[in-house]
Amino acid sequence: MSAEGSTPWQATVLSLFPEMFPGPLGHSIADKARKSGLWSLKSLDIRDFARDKHRSVDETPFGGGSGMVMRPNVVDAALASVDDMPGRRIYLSPRGARFDQAMARELAAEPGVVLLCGRYEGLDQRVIDARGLEEVSLGDFVLSGGEIPALALLDACIRLLPGVLGAAETLDEESFEEGLLEYPHYTQPREWNGVSVPEILLSGHHARIRSWRREQSEEITRQRRPDLWARYRGSEE
Amino acid sequence: MSAEGSTPWQATVLSLFPEMFPGPLGHSIADKARKSGLWSLKSLDIRDFARDKHRSVDETPFGGGSGMVMRPNVVDAALASVDDMPGRRIYLSPRGARFDQAMARELAAEPGVVLLCGRYEGLDQRVIDARGLEEVSLGDFVLSGGEIPALALLDACIRLLPGVLGAAETLDEESFEEGLLEYPHYTQPREWNGVSVPEILLSGHHARIRSWRREQSEEITRQRRPDLWARYRGSEE
Repeated sequence: MSAEGSTPWQATVLSLFPEMFPGPLGHSIADKARKSGLWSLKSLDIRDFARDKHRSVDETPFGGGSGMVMRPNVVDAALASVDDMPGRRIYLSPRGARFDQAMARELAAEPGVVLLCGRYEGLDQRVIDARGLEEVSLGDFVLSGGEIPALALLDACIRLLPGVLGAAETLDEESFEEGLLEYPHYTQPREWNGVSVPEILLSGHHARIRSWRREQSEEITRQRRPDLWARYRGSEE
Repeated sequence: MSAEGSTPWQATVLSLFPEMFPGPLGHSIADKARKSGLWSLKSLDIRDFARDKHRSVDETPFGGGSGMVMRPNVVDAALASVDDMPGRRIYLSPRGARFDQAMARELAAEPGVVLLCGRYEGLDQRVIDARGLEEVSLGDFVLSGGEIPALALLDACIRLLPGVLGAAETLDEESFEEGLLEYPHYTQPREWNGVSVPEILLSGHHARIRSWRREQSEEITRQRRPDLWARYRGSEE
């Protein structure tokens, strides 16, 4: 586990656009955490591992079709250069296992992670096989590269690192930590646009507030996400 | 539909960290497309709509609990300021409908989109209700804000805009466009690390290559994503 003074959680990113990092993670919570030594970032340019004079990293696919495919030897050399970096080797790809909060918790509990960002036609299958890369997907949509998914994965992990968020309970009550979607939030002003905040939240009765919020979470999950609801019901029994 | 010379697809983003945009979309394909006038970006700072002297945008939640909640009046004023911008009003939230390739296609076919990025405890429920905001989620994980999901959503839409990608077929053959995961790719060198590319891809027989790829896609989908596979089988019958 990382903490101030000890080894930071180590994020290693291989990309054709290393300048996209830290990007959004260079602001706000993630930035503060990095400056406090809670995590570190090493982003490498895959192009630096191309050995021919044109520094080419991709080529047309065997068998035809549009788009380019990343060369196995170049990607392999890039991965070899970070053999000493800790963590699972993840290739961000829409064919992968779906990233979720459980995976974020797993990755955050390890000493770091190594992320390989492809550009959209993808990677030669042989390097995926040879390196035993773990394919991870953000969801059923296609992006122009693995960089934004890598940023999302890192952000989800970083906020789980010890010391990054202020209050421990912030993590306990949020979405998915109990398998439910979050209850609705209300803040000042007490009346806005003709609508008051629910009376119960003003009652000061903590146990009742807790059970109202739990009911709201259950109801929203039941309505919006029958899949999560079924799993939650299963785990309750 | 956007095209060079006509109105660009308009992305409007409301965030407490407008400096995170265009971020990764300021590189590569998305950047080129923006410079060609295929899409435009307007990112506003929600804090500019705070009217009190401290410019406060959030407050502690009614009913207690950790974290802060974004004030309904400030968020409402920010949304009112972009009433003239085209597109659906989307609040990025883990409670929302799952973003997918079908939604990306829908949004890309409209004149633009307006995205509201919350910070993690969320938004006062009353402004979600009053404005009829559509909640959209990237997946079952928690991020420190809606900014990275907004970048992902925009990237998925931008690459679908007419003129952004070179060859039209690049879109036809990729993941999810037919409800299947992608087949494996191979490129030079023909033999690498003791493994040759599959013989069929060197045959030059286009029909056989097409059916081999289809079989591979089906097999990968069946193994990795029983949910997609069931839907695909259903739509075939």
